Amino acid sequence: MKIAVLGTGNVGDTIGSKLVELGHSVMMGSRTSSNEKGKAFVAKHSDKASLGSFADAAAFGEIIFNCTAGSGSLEALKLAGENNLKGKIIIDIANPLDFSKGMPPTLSIVNGNSLAEEIQKTFPAANVVKALNTMWCGLMVNPAMINGGDHSTFISGNDADAKEKVKGILKSFGWADKNILDLGDITTARGTEMYLPLWLRIYGATNNGGFNIKIVS
Amino acid sequence: MKIAVLGTGNVGDTIGSKLVELGHSVMMGSRTSSNEKGKAFVAKHSDKASLGSFADAAAFGEIIFNCTAGSGSLEALKLAGENNLKGKIIIDIANPLDFSKGMPPTLSIVNGNSLAEEIQKTFPAANVVKALNTMWCGLMVNPAMINGGDHSTFISGNDADAKEKVKGILKSFGWADKNILDLGDITTARGTEMYLPLWLRIYGATNNGGFNIKIVS
Repeated sequence: MKIAVLGTGNVGDTIGSKLVELGHSVMMGSRTSSNEKGKAFVAKHSDKASLGSFADAAAFGEIIFNCTAGSGSLEALKLAGENNLKGKIIIDIANPLDFSKGMPPTLSIVNGNSLAEEIQKTFPAANVVKALNTMWCGLMVNPAMINGGDHSTFISGNDADAKEKVKGILKSFGWADKNILDLGDITTARGTEMYLPLWLRIYGATNNGGFNIKIVS
Repeated sequence: MKIAVLGTGNVGDTIGSKLVELGHSVMMGSRTSSNEKGKAFVAKHSDKASLGSFADAAAFGEIIFNCTAGSGSLEALKLAGENNLKGKIIIDIANPLDFSKGMPPTLSIVNGNSLAEEIQKTFPAANVVKALNTMWCGLMVNPAMINGGDHSTFISGNDADAKEKVKGILKSFGWADKNILDLGDITTARGTEMYLPLWLRIYGATNNGGFNIKIVS
């Protein structure tokens, strides 16, 4: 499949590299197509990877991963262009972290709203699915790294078909079906985004970002 | 030990009943000492349980459990009286849930603040320890009910001795030492309170409130 990865940071590099490994063609999108980290990504993956502007990548991809920083996601997606996103699935991994008030960050969108909903409202012709935003990126694409892969991940979105497709991608990353919990419509992303402050405090207390939560009952 | 349980709802009844079972003397506090649920609690536990106003209970207890609804906790503690709380541990189980904007509730205190911090600021001579606010009350006092008791709980507070004492109480409830994570000072309660929206969404998706999260790494 042709997939766009918006954002050249660690998350984009990790997701993009896994997608290439799985045989997909990946175009990484950034503000400037001369982005150094983007060039390094392409150099690493040769013929299966390319680099372009946010708009180039969104036009290329059948599915769009939003791996930009949450504070810049809406702007990046606007640069990607409404027409390039129309009818496509946007997998939103970002969290609306606000580092301007010191550490740990607060959330710039919170409580009665979420970044995922803002993206869905801004691009009503796209299908936004919130996923994977509750853990360190290494675990997103390699859940087997801890607890034999037995821990939980969540999806939120308004479109059932889009969620099924995202579930398929998560399974290709190694997630077991029983560990992928569909929380419901896109408003349920408020839950996973608001988990971030607890994630940050657990990380702060344990000095280990390589953890996740498993729902037990 | 003499323990006050403020609040006569399910949480107060569950915590109070477990404390009586463990041999403590419990005074349940409510707005009116003629509270019907409070009377039922006393009737159930005879000589180890009593009922009084918030102030009566706070004066009686060496340790105070705040089991009131989060929206009324500060008022209840003000009625309990600053002098009755001085030098004592307040175990704050409440969440600042706001049901006024529909279901699921939002948080009335959020992001750069928390209910636990507001309580600590309002009663600086007390030691507030946030605990147990991340699960259904049945699990608080009986973690063995699921997954052989192997799941996670959190404590937050400024005073190390107070947290040690609360840890002791949690252990008496059945929590294993390795599953009690001290997140740090009272500001870390922002993390556990902001987890509630995710808790509510998991509950909504699974129709089962008898779950908890286990940190795996």
